[in-house]
Amino acid sequence: MDKVRVIEIKKSVFAENEKDADELRKDLKDRGVFLLNLMSSPGSGKTTTLIRTINLLKDKLRIAVMEADIDSDVDAIKIKEATGIQSIQLHTGGMCHLDAEMTRQGLEGLDLTDVDLVVLENVGNLVCPAEFDTGSVCNAMILSVPEGDDKPLKYPLMFSVCDVVVINKTDVLPYFDFDLDKCQEYIHMRNPKARVIPVCAKTGEGIDAFAGWLLEEVNIWKQE
Amino acid sequence: MDKVRVIEIKKSVFAENEKDADELRKDLKDRGVFLLNLMSSPGSGKTTTLIRTINLLKDKLRIAVMEADIDSDVDAIKIKEATGIQSIQLHTGGMCHLDAEMTRQGLEGLDLTDVDLVVLENVGNLVCPAEFDTGSVCNAMILSVPEGDDKPLKYPLMFSVCDVVVINKTDVLPYFDFDLDKCQEYIHMRNPKARVIPVCAKTGEGIDAFAGWLLEEVNIWKQE
Repeated sequence: MDKVRVIEIKKSVFAENEKDADELRKDLKDRGVFLLNLMSSPGSGKTTTLIRTINLLKDKLRIAVMEADIDSDVDAIKIKEATGIQSIQLHTGGMCHLDAEMTRQGLEGLDLTDVDLVVLENVGNLVCPAEFDTGSVCNAMILSVPEGDDKPLKYPLMFSVCDVVVINKTDVLPYFDFDLDKCQEYIHMRNPKARVIPVCAKTGEGIDAFAGWLLEEVNIWKQE
Repeated sequence: MDKVRVIEIKKSVFAENEKDADELRKDLKDRGVFLLNLMSSPGSGKTTTLIRTINLLKDKLRIAVMEADIDSDVDAIKIKEATGIQSIQLHTGGMCHLDAEMTRQGLEGLDLTDVDLVVLENVGNLVCPAEFDTGSVCNAMILSVPEGDDKPLKYPLMFSVCDVVVINKTDVLPYFDFDLDKCQEYIHMRNPKARVIPVCAKTGEGIDAFAGWLLEEVNIWKQE
């Protein structure tokens, strides 16, 4: 297996995360780097969705990935092997989320020359990551069918901070009591503007819609 | 729908959670109340597993349930309607876990006269709840098949603090790349003593094994 760079993230010393996130966003804007923060529960398919998306976009955008995890480096290796792009692993030392300063520590481990888009795969958790602005331009989340259509009722903040909700594992819809319309309705209760994109990362179905959304967001942001 | 009691949990003022948890454990022992802390990711099937388990055990043990959630009271209502037992909802006000003092606040909302077993359904999260001793006698967790067999590699602390790991949604094993043997091996890497019990809460398969384990734990503890 390939080796990947592993960065041990230290706890932030800054109390004012929002201010720090705005500064990081500005720094990245000056450097022409779009940061996407991707969140979800454990096991919802973030890495597989990301691999499919990168392979659709890598001829159009220069992409790098930071994989945050409590432990292990399996995801960063998977991304590197499956896409060939720059991929590093961030170890959070048991911490359940990333804030702007921790994201900045991760970014320092990447070579950002000639990079248009950095995807931060946040820690698998529907609670804490939603509370901390990472400095990203957009927040995306993945909800997978087996988790249930009621998740927007139970984790309101996560759904309200995301610009797009990808509903993954649509191939197993026949085996679960998951009502796609009801789920969309719950998501829009939390966040009327959220885009909802059903996909199946395993087969690739729907990934073009997510990749298209992301490419458009990057292009609009570049022209701002 | 039935109404259930909802308790708004306040943030703990105690710095020494471990000491506080030991005290709560002692208090509960004096009152003859066994506390089980049940953890998992969002949507792994905690509530369904619990309903099946309670219905198998409610003639043998007097059971009450505390459902912790960021928001909503759907789980406590479900439990009450499906089992008829005492069930209350704890709102954590955005907090991602429960500690011993927060658990104590919840317990004060229950009538513990004639109760043998209280099940605390913790917030759906594989990270933070593992870090805080709630004062429980045992910790149990549910890992569902769609989340993937690699979760013990990624969330080491959760698996190392649990006495039993219930592997749920075995009915969908044919549709996912989930290796039950490999998962057991990963769990035992983290915690050689952990009991692993495959179940399908939807059909009830395997629930007797989990209920049997729990009944035995309560009986052993009563005789200690």
